[in-house]
Amino acid sequence: MTELLRSWVETANDPDSPFPLNNLPFGVFSAGDAPRCGVAIGDRVLDLAALQAAGLLPESGFDAPALNSFMAKGKEAWADIRARLTDLLREGNASDTLRAALQEMGGVTLHLPFTVAEYTDFYAGRQHAFNVGSLFRDPENALPPNWLHIPIGYNGRASTVVVSGTEFHRPMGQLKGPQDAMPGFGPSKRLDIELEMGAVVGLPTEMGQRISVDEADDMIFGYVLLNDWSARDIQAWEYQPLGPFQAKAFATTISPWVVTKAALAPFRCATPPREKELLPHIRDTGPMLYDIDLSVTMAAPGGTPTEICRTNYNTLYYSAAQQLAHHASSGCAMRTGDLLGSGTISGPEKGMFGSLLEMTWGGRDPITLEGGETRTFIEDGDTLTLQGHAQGEGYRIGFGPCVGTILPARDQG
Amino acid sequence: MTELLRSWVETANDPDSPFPLNNLPFGVFSAGDAPRCGVAIGDRVLDLAALQAAGLLPESGFDAPALNSFMAKGKEAWADIRARLTDLLREGNASDTLRAALQEMGGVTLHLPFTVAEYTDFYAGRQHAFNVGSLFRDPENALPPNWLHIPIGYNGRASTVVVSGTEFHRPMGQLKGPQDAMPGFGPSKRLDIELEMGAVVGLPTEMGQRISVDEADDMIFGYVLLNDWSARDIQAWEYQPLGPFQAKAFATTISPWVVTKAALAPFRCATPPREKELLPHIRDTGPMLYDIDLSVTMAAPGGTPTEICRTNYNTLYYSAAQQLAHHASSGCAMRTGDLLGSGTISGPEKGMFGSLLEMTWGGRDPITLEGGETRTFIEDGDTLTLQGHAQGEGYRIGFGPCVGTILPARDQG
Repeated sequence: MTELLRSWVETANDPDSPFPLNNLPFGVFSAGDAPRCGVAIGDRVLDLAALQAAGLLPESGFDAPALNSFMAKGKEAWADIRARLTDLLREGNASDTLRAALQEMGGVTLHLPFTVAEYTDFYAGRQHAFNVGSLFRDPENALPPNWLHIPIGYNGRASTVVVSGTEFHRPMGQLKGPQDAMPGFGPSKRLDIELEMGAVVGLPTEMGQRISVDEADDMIFGYVLLNDWSARDIQAWEYQPLGPFQAKAFATTISPWVVTKAALAPFRCATPPREKELLPHIRDTGPMLYDIDLSVTMAAPGGTPTEICRTNYNTLYYSAAQQLAHHASSGCAMRTGDLLGSGTISGPEKGMFGSLLEMTWGGRDPITLEGGETRTFIEDGDTLTLQGHAQGEGYRIGFGPCVGTILPARDQG
Repeated sequence: MTELLRSWVETANDPDSPFPLNNLPFGVFSAGDAPRCGVAIGDRVLDLAALQAAGLLPESGFDAPALNSFMAKGKEAWADIRARLTDLLREGNASDTLRAALQEMGGVTLHLPFTVAEYTDFYAGRQHAFNVGSLFRDPENALPPNWLHIPIGYNGRASTVVVSGTEFHRPMGQLKGPQDAMPGFGPSKRLDIELEMGAVVGLPTEMGQRISVDEADDMIFGYVLLNDWSARDIQAWEYQPLGPFQAKAFATTISPWVVTKAALAPFRCATPPREKELLPHIRDTGPMLYDIDLSVTMAAPGGTPTEICRTNYNTLYYSAAQQLAHHASSGCAMRTGDLLGSGTISGPEKGMFGSLLEMTWGGRDPITLEGGETRTFIEDGDTLTLQGHAQGEGYRIGFGPCVGTILPARDQG
């Protein structure tokens, strides 16, 4: 495992900083002016549009409100820019031009880092699939028969993918309890999170083009934290036979910084042992998961954030590269900016479950927050925060928080 | 019902022309040069970018390779442009400028008429839902319990929506028959069509904004024919529990002209009687379906096109406006360029079924084409064509064909 690379930005050398020189995650920021691309370093944001204008970086589309242009350039360009930034920010290499291109992170607004082309959500957590299968269907046959053969996924809604910190209203929808004669329309009473990672597709494929798992891995630009907010009561009523629709269409929150595959490279790890041999087009060809410590906190309005889940990305059954290879396998064209949700990441024990549905076992066992509040599902004003980092020797690769606060439903009725 | 409006473009006055002055559908064309917006009139395409440049139309974004700018302007702008075009093309109003802006349809290439923001496919045909429920699940409980209460839909894949005439390869995928111990990977053997209409969303909504059915209807710019190609064997293995994914991701074909709501207005009709009262947010507020005669032909390679289905859009249970109101009901943001597939349109009898799955009852009863070829599902080289028109007094509002030819699977294995 590599060690801390020291930067002249002093705060980047703090072993607890999420953004050391080893990280260099890409995002989009503004400071009362036009949104443009930047990288996080310590407690600062480096203005890549300014560096590009000053000739310190090659023209890479950084003077845009989205990373898509840069993401479409592919792995050689990504590596080249990373090498240049590493050099520019390395201890001893400070200059007035570089200092002028730094902004305090506390003083900028972070935007959605890329234009989401399409959003696909997978279901690659074995424990989660087992838990949900037990709760929604039959504990005896909790895992669907295809689950060990296919990275199951569904198309989600890209128009409501939002950046961390975006507040939104509790969704409304058709609800029908098992005892109700007729459905009603009203605010979801079983609003939930799903702790996920999101893989960000950089390179596209053409319609009809299939790709190997290795090619798929090369297409991935980086990763974000992803909260796939879910209205369980809307979901239960609507999802048969064609899958989740409005239950997950109202909001999906991602963390503001895209952490590159290069930054995560020292933390690559293998998928768990295969219970059934995978077909060649999605067979493992190397370690493509990552050892990323993940947690969720929940805070009641004005209350203390309480950790309600701690788990790891390395528990998933399928890697994002396998998911992407499967996604393209029919001939489906993939696009720069496609976002692939991993599926809910639930470890094998209760404190490791990545959704309230699982933590409270369908709402039967409330959890208690540090202020004494009890919760089965999310109440109005609650704040949910996902956090994640990979732990190196004396440094960490952090993602920045993925935060959402729920406003009351509006226009009820 | 209105009568034929006569145009100085003589071919538009033929009672069998799909594109009389009453129609004026919008599309995107090129003739060896840059794609731009046009309208179909008789056997000609009128170059709207040229008219805009000549000052005969207000600046409406017609000098672009997609209708999205114009579609985002809303119903007053749509009505204004329609009124101006009607006047410019009315009998007696020919001019040299107008004649110069006409191109022969046979000499132009028609492109995808708008950039598809997101693609959603619904399931609003009662007979189709009953047929598929009978085939895939249980004939005794064929209609899912939610079906009469919610316009069921799922998010499809926008990246593979293509214009009529686009050829594509037979999809590959994971397949597992009921007798197979393990799945395999190979070309779909049960490739199918779904005869649908597509509603094209012009006006967007914000995240969290709900809309009435009337507001939803106002947001719809127009309609196209839509073939939701489906690989039934991939679908059968993958679709539980999260719905269709790769089985429908490889291609969706639409007709090249967007027929506006104004052109279809004389053909509005009501949905069928409600079997269960709908909740207020999707309750019918007026006639929002259309009397559109639809047909499908199938041709073996080099063979005669044989009509295999004739049905009508008016048989659907939910209108596109109801589907759109439901789509936004959770707070899901809708976008200019969203495409909503109606669901397969199957009439009550066998010759009216909109998919081969239904026509051949799951592949058990082959159909015979006019050349004597028999088919259960689509074979390589087959050409499938959807056609549709609304019949007025001495004129028809046509859509232009929605055609696809299947190439053999590539890179097998």
